[in-house]
Amino acid sequence: MKDQMAPVMSASKSEILDAAAVVFMDLGVDVASIDDIARHLGSTKGRIYHHFASKGVLLSEVCLRAADFTYRKVALVIDPDAAPDKNLRNMILAHVPEVLRTLPYHKVIRQTYPGINQKSTTQVERDLHQRIHAERDRYEGLFRAELRRGMTDGIFRQQNETIALHGMLLLVNAPVIWYTPRADEPEGFALEIARQTADMAVRALS
Amino acid sequence: MKDQMAPVMSASKSEILDAAAVVFMDLGVDVASIDDIARHLGSTKGRIYHHFASKGVLLSEVCLRAADFTYRKVALVIDPDAAPDKNLRNMILAHVPEVLRTLPYHKVIRQTYPGINQKSTTQVERDLHQRIHAERDRYEGLFRAELRRGMTDGIFRQQNETIALHGMLLLVNAPVIWYTPRADEPEGFALEIARQTADMAVRALS
Repeated sequence: MKDQMAPVMSASKSEILDAAAVVFMDLGVDVASIDDIARHLGSTKGRIYHHFASKGVLLSEVCLRAADFTYRKVALVIDPDAAPDKNLRNMILAHVPEVLRTLPYHKVIRQTYPGINQKSTTQVERDLHQRIHAERDRYEGLFRAELRRGMTDGIFRQQNETIALHGMLLLVNAPVIWYTPRADEPEGFALEIARQTADMAVRALS
Repeated sequence: MKDQMAPVMSASKSEILDAAAVVFMDLGVDVASIDDIARHLGSTKGRIYHHFASKGVLLSEVCLRAADFTYRKVALVIDPDAAPDKNLRNMILAHVPEVLRTLPYHKVIRQTYPGINQKSTTQVERDLHQRIHAERDRYEGLFRAELRRGMTDGIFRQQNETIALHGMLLLVNAPVIWYTPRADEPEGFALEIARQTADMAVRALS
């Protein structure tokens, strides 16, 4: 899961987050422990605690990184001079393959969102959750802006923005729920998912 | 949440399930206890245990009932002689208001699905989970049949069935995630959600 655009994160921290995402996904966020993640890494718990103060912090950082992965790819392809439907298509063509590339992170987010507010305990965790919500809003804002612009321009039909935005975002994230990588999947399947999802989303709004 | 078509379920059992759905939704499936549900009901734990052997069984029954609510409404409106896009529209116009009417049940399902296999402990619970999966497959099958028929007839465009089906189902269930009933919501908002969602889904496939 190497990211060419990786920021200032150390390789060691990145490796722990990758392992945590896989273990949280496989065992479930509630069941998985720091011990399980250390075992998966073939490492000590000390190495994990060196970077992350608690399981809650580690989980929040997995969620934050999930949002960061897609934001970086998608923000890049938006052209303020392009038509909103063209931008939206390009955003989805960037979003879907990135989600599939970093799938464990997004599967964890999907497990975590419904309960994330109920389990905030420390101030550090609450602050991280606020950042997760802010990052999600910022990311959704990219899609909201194109939807709005498209309705103003008459490229998308007039419709309730909340219903349209959330319907479209769920459609675009559907692969997080149903997709599992398989050795026997057809060549280019990830691209097919991206293209068909983009088609569906643009038509849904048009 | 009275259901006109209620089957052989006793009013007492139904009332406990309604309370359990609300408490699971509010506190989270992992945190909520039989004690919390009894308190919400103003009742004893004994009354709950009279109908449900464990919290796991009660949770499974909430999920099964969620599937049952929508299956009953949606199966009714399918006309084998009607065009697939017309059927699909009518199915969504039946599905969405029923989901909003029984929202706590569906919010609980949404919390439960990702982890449901990890937490099966007793044979009774495992059997219930198998039934939940079978019911979900049966329900999805209603939508899959119309999608297939529509592609054969040329009413829906040729596309990968898995991507289309799951994208459409997530779109149709988006209100479970984002919708919360509000005292100040516009009159007829539930119907607007149903109509716009149906429009989006049919266009996404066409």
